[in-house]
Amino acid sequence: MDLDPFIRKVPNWPKQGILFYDVTTLFENKEVFASLVETLVAPYVREKIDKVVGIDARGFILAGVVGYKLGAGVSLIRKKGKLPYKTIAESYTLEYASETVEMHEDTIKTGERVLIIDDLLATGGTLEAAIKLVERLGGNIIGIACVVNLPFLGGETKLKKYQPYSLISYQGEKVV
Amino acid sequence: MDLDPFIRKVPNWPKQGILFYDVTTLFENKEVFASLVETLVAPYVREKIDKVVGIDARGFILAGVVGYKLGAGVSLIRKKGKLPYKTIAESYTLEYASETVEMHEDTIKTGERVLIIDDLLATGGTLEAAIKLVERLGGNIIGIACVVNLPFLGGETKLKKYQPYSLISYQGEKVV
Repeated sequence: MDLDPFIRKVPNWPKQGILFYDVTTLFENKEVFASLVETLVAPYVREKIDKVVGIDARGFILAGVVGYKLGAGVSLIRKKGKLPYKTIAESYTLEYASETVEMHEDTIKTGERVLIIDDLLATGGTLEAAIKLVERLGGNIIGIACVVNLPFLGGETKLKKYQPYSLISYQGEKVV
Repeated sequence: MDLDPFIRKVPNWPKQGILFYDVTTLFENKEVFASLVETLVAPYVREKIDKVVGIDARGFILAGVVGYKLGAGVSLIRKKGKLPYKTIAESYTLEYASETVEMHEDTIKTGERVLIIDDLLATGGTLEAAIKLVERLGGNIIGIACVVNLPFLGGETKLKKYQPYSLISYQGEKVV
């Protein structure tokens, strides 16, 4: 299914000059959502995934259903201060600031086969922090899957060792 | 399945004197997660649900998979400032503060049959705001479903018109 017509493009959000790819319009369309989930899961059905890792917050919409479809458990990566138990943390820099994400220290066991899910691959900063958290817990990263890839922002190159999988890629406003 | 042994209880979180029911330990266990999803979905399979509404952020883990299982679309309720398109908002008071949640103004169509999902029913403040948002958009609320219910905090009573469904209830530390 061509997802492009179902992704809302919001100009100047979250700030002037940025074109935002709004995936909520994919999620709210039942046919598109079902098709998207099946396409996202397909490469991993024979990979014996133990844990699907979801990234706060839109990534959670996908991580739950992908985990369920793969018969895996679901682990959460959250912004600092949101997880109640003992955590490990990774910080990464955004354009003008720094962000910290955390994971419960017991949510991945050594050797578990892990699939990391998010909605968007942009600069790759959040996903790179997610990879570090999973690997510090001994997880074996089998895949990284996203819906929208924006390769002009550098994330795909940064994460190329993990061969990120995505359903649609944009170069600016153009599907590539 | 008795979920109690799989829910981690974290004392004094988010503050002194509060016992926090941590559902992440349900999500990360593949057998428990699959069973939980199936039990959560069961009452609604013949209800022709159009939209499952998930609440930021833990509710998203459940809303995606419940929407998929019911063949419904998924709509998001997010904290203020997180949604990129035109929104409607509702505010509610917490113990010492006020919180605002938003929904895209076009995410529910008039007459759509809606199931609202969250992980926890405590005071009911967030769910009450969610109900108002959905009803302002013309949605017909068919159900409200949660994993953990804490009736001693008053939410179940506050929402009794909607007969909230939950998988496990606690009175303090005791399952009731």
